[in-house]
Amino acid sequence: MSTSITAALDAGRGPAEHDVRTQIIEAATAHFSHFGYEKTTVSDLAKAIGFSKAYIYKFFASKQAIGEVICANCLAQIESDVHAALERVEAAPDRLRALFTAIVDASLRLFVQDRRLYEIAVAAATDRWPSTQAYQGRIRDLVELILKQGRASGVFETSTPLDGTSRAVFQVLAPYLNPVTLPHLSGLYAEAPLALQELVLRSLAPQP
Amino acid sequence: MSTSITAALDAGRGPAEHDVRTQIIEAATAHFSHFGYEKTTVSDLAKAIGFSKAYIYKFFASKQAIGEVICANCLAQIESDVHAALERVEAAPDRLRALFTAIVDASLRLFVQDRRLYEIAVAAATDRWPSTQAYQGRIRDLVELILKQGRASGVFETSTPLDGTSRAVFQVLAPYLNPVTLPHLSGLYAEAPLALQELVLRSLAPQP
Repeated sequence: MSTSITAALDAGRGPAEHDVRTQIIEAATAHFSHFGYEKTTVSDLAKAIGFSKAYIYKFFASKQAIGEVICANCLAQIESDVHAALERVEAAPDRLRALFTAIVDASLRLFVQDRRLYEIAVAAATDRWPSTQAYQGRIRDLVELILKQGRASGVFETSTPLDGTSRAVFQVLAPYLNPVTLPHLSGLYAEAPLALQELVLRSLAPQP
Repeated sequence: MSTSITAALDAGRGPAEHDVRTQIIEAATAHFSHFGYEKTTVSDLAKAIGFSKAYIYKFFASKQAIGEVICANCLAQIESDVHAALERVEAAPDRLRALFTAIVDASLRLFVQDRRLYEIAVAAATDRWPSTQAYQGRIRDLVELILKQGRASGVFETSTPLDGTSRAVFQVLAPYLNPVTLPHLSGLYAEAPLALQELVLRSLAPQP
């Protein structure tokens, strides 16, 4: 039912819409990563792609709408790294270690490798774009899932409420995955990259 | 010996030097907190105080030199709050709780109450002024001191190396006292202000 509605809408907007959107996103990603997000206008972008500004506005309501898609793509890349790392291990403590390491490393890599594209992530985090809010929510859920697994298998304590403890673990991790705060903490993190996760794991150990 | 050297230097620069410096700092603090640090030049400041620019430069080499003193004063205010809170309790776990609460609350208060003055703290943290580096070092030392006390009195575990564990605890706390990162984390912190400290305390509990 919903598939046929989507198909009908797609047909209404023209069959090539998806391709044009992809084309604009790819060109914008290349352009932003070269010239930066903040300094680029939709006019600059239109000129660079060879489309009219009006044509771009047919597909995206604003520069932020384009940025949102690019940001979502970047976050999806980080999440795909995280899930790949999680799949390699089974025990809950190892999964928590993998989560911490993969998420900080992937975020740092994005920051170091593609500093100009990173500007989009900063705008997204500062202005609380829906994509980053949803992303943080999913990481929070992942933390809770791992804690639940560890409690069920008896390797994590069960004397504290699951939601409160998950939130506390996320509060430890959050500054190190937020694109605005991470660059200011990367030096401290580099001093002892395993320190946070080991501290958290000790806090989760079953008490006597 | 060093006192007489200082006295001689002071005499050489004129006996009123200390007063003039204080006067400039007080006027600059008022001016910055009204118009912001970034947008104000030394010329603006000179005009506002009624001194010549050259006269101000006799006492401070740059705007940053003035900012450094104001920043050090703000940090001293936070530290004085922290030490007052620490003096009210004795047991190491309570002292750690007091440290976390007092330092985040005092930093948030400075941020919320005096957002324009806060710009100086942001410049200081971003450009790693010596005053903020020294401040962070002192907080780090305070963490280690409390951990040492707790280990000596048997309420904290002693199976991990003191310096590594102190560093890990500081890594948890640091994002919530850094003036650049704190505003981006204050919402998360407000959700559960005790979560971080309780997690850290569980991690420090003696293991069976």
